[in-house]
Amino acid sequence: MTAKKLDASDITERLTALPAWAVQGGKLHREYKFADFVEAFGFMASVALIAERMNHHPEWSNVWATVVIDLTTHDAGGITSKDFALAGEMERLARPRTT
Amino acid sequence: MTAKKLDASDITERLTALPAWAVQGGKLHREYKFADFVEAFGFMASVALIAERMNHHPEWSNVWATVVIDLTTHDAGGITSKDFALAGEMERLARPRTT
Repeated sequence: MTAKKLDASDITERLTALPAWAVQGGKLHREYKFADFVEAFGFMASVALIAERMNHHPEWSNVWATVVIDLTTHDAGGITSKDFALAGEMERLARPRTT
Repeated sequence: MTAKKLDASDITERLTALPAWAVQGGKLHREYKFADFVEAFGFMASVALIAERMNHHPEWSNVWATVVIDLTTHDAGGITSKDFALAGEMERLARPRTT
């Protein structure tokens, strides 16, 4: 079951909940800056598990403490609710882990 | 202690031991294709540990089963023996793990 491509107004509305994200090149985009490689890759490892569980995977790159994310749903030809769900999980995982 | 930037003839000679690698954009470059995301990210997790131990980290991107690598030594302004060492570790880690 493929998620449906969201239209521009849907995307704009959903982005209000994710202020650090933007649409770039037709994909949901964010750049994260961590303290160092260990933190950056720790984030990526957490996201990898969640992405596999969701069966929805990011396009991403990493250089040292920077992780750049682009989310799109290839089957739908654009941004879907699955991309927003994964972006939301990333925001949660990027926050400090301890209380 | 910074590794010394290798000249073109050094690089050409060292590449004979790494036939799947090439120089692209002044960096040591390779694209790995795995069976799926689990294998691709498993490789990345292995490389991350080695890179951290070496204190030498890749520029890399991942989309599903593909991992694209670019290696350079920023301090040296080019490709050094550290990049070849990391590339060699990646080749080792990308091979099947069991006997």
